[in-house]
Amino acid sequence: MISSIDQLIKFLGRLPGLGPRSGRRMALHLLKNKENLLRPLEHMLNEVAAQVVRCVQCGNLDTCSPCSICTNPERQCGTLCVVADVDDVWALERSGAFKGQYHILGGVLSAMEGVGPDKLNLHGLLDRLASNNIKEIVLALSATIEGQTTAHYVVGRLDDYPHLLITKLAHGVPVGGELDYLDDGTLMTALKARRPF
Amino acid sequence: MISSIDQLIKFLGRLPGLGPRSGRRMALHLLKNKENLLRPLEHMLNEVAAQVVRCVQCGNLDTCSPCSICTNPERQCGTLCVVADVDDVWALERSGAFKGQYHILGGVLSAMEGVGPDKLNLHGLLDRLASNNIKEIVLALSATIEGQTTAHYVVGRLDDYPHLLITKLAHGVPVGGELDYLDDGTLMTALKARRPF
Repeated sequence: MISSIDQLIKFLGRLPGLGPRSGRRMALHLLKNKENLLRPLEHMLNEVAAQVVRCVQCGNLDTCSPCSICTNPERQCGTLCVVADVDDVWALERSGAFKGQYHILGGVLSAMEGVGPDKLNLHGLLDRLASNNIKEIVLALSATIEGQTTAHYVVGRLDDYPHLLITKLAHGVPVGGELDYLDDGTLMTALKARRPF
Repeated sequence: MISSIDQLIKFLGRLPGLGPRSGRRMALHLLKNKENLLRPLEHMLNEVAAQVVRCVQCGNLDTCSPCSICTNPERQCGTLCVVADVDDVWALERSGAFKGQYHILGGVLSAMEGVGPDKLNLHGLLDRLASNNIKEIVLALSATIEGQTTAHYVVGRLDDYPHLLITKLAHGVPVGGELDYLDDGTLMTALKARRPF
């Protein structure tokens, strides 16, 4: 019979960023500090599991639905940023550069992984466009083949809104990036999109 | 008010091997898979917290006390391996090379961190020597200044047992290690302890 300790080690080792060794290290660290770490972590997990829900409007994870971004009166509700997943919302929120609202598709189109248009939350997006006065859609999808295919597909589905402004994130040299280490594709895009100094 | 999600991210980010970024990544991964990951992890933590205890005899962490090593009739109870912490017992058990029993000191002497002899489980060791027929003590302490100081201190406390065999782990070139990358201290020790081919 596999003991509960081994079970925990195995489970932790499969979490992202951890492996068998670091999983064991973390399990031992938790076990050694039962009252200060293990019990509080268990309590915290219980709390988030009970509190965190998916926002019915944008698909974000928050302790309330609609989420705190959708209900924030200071956000411009005329601008909608379309992203693939919650990670992207969190990343954009950390940058603090976007003041509008979000719409999470829940993935990108991928023939390899069998993700078709029906698996993405496009209905929700079209519903929001139909019932709200949205002026701009910012496509913030990854610069990968899947991300760009998804962007094109979304644009195709927005034909009914000819006055809608559709934009996408700029491509170019990352801030702090050295030219020498950049791939050719990025350099080419950055050169084509060059701007007056 | 800090939300329960932020609290979880902060907590995970302070665990060994994780940082703010990987803590966030793990929290998001758990939240996205509430039923498959978050709830099972919570359940597992609850289980180990309830089951895992410190062995009264050797100090190991196990689901029973005395632990499964101490109660295993196939282990030689005449040989006692003295280690600093539970990590070391697990590492030696993985190697499968030791068939005796363990004694965990619970740390090493360290002036910097204020660990004196009273903080180590030396009494337990002396009690075991007094009441059991122990023939050999294997000192498996780290080859650091603190580890070696602790080893010398332990040996000093064993004066009452002149017939006890006291040994320590061999130092030398790690198996699979390249000479080129080894520090001078290890090379010197390995050369001094050279053996006939």
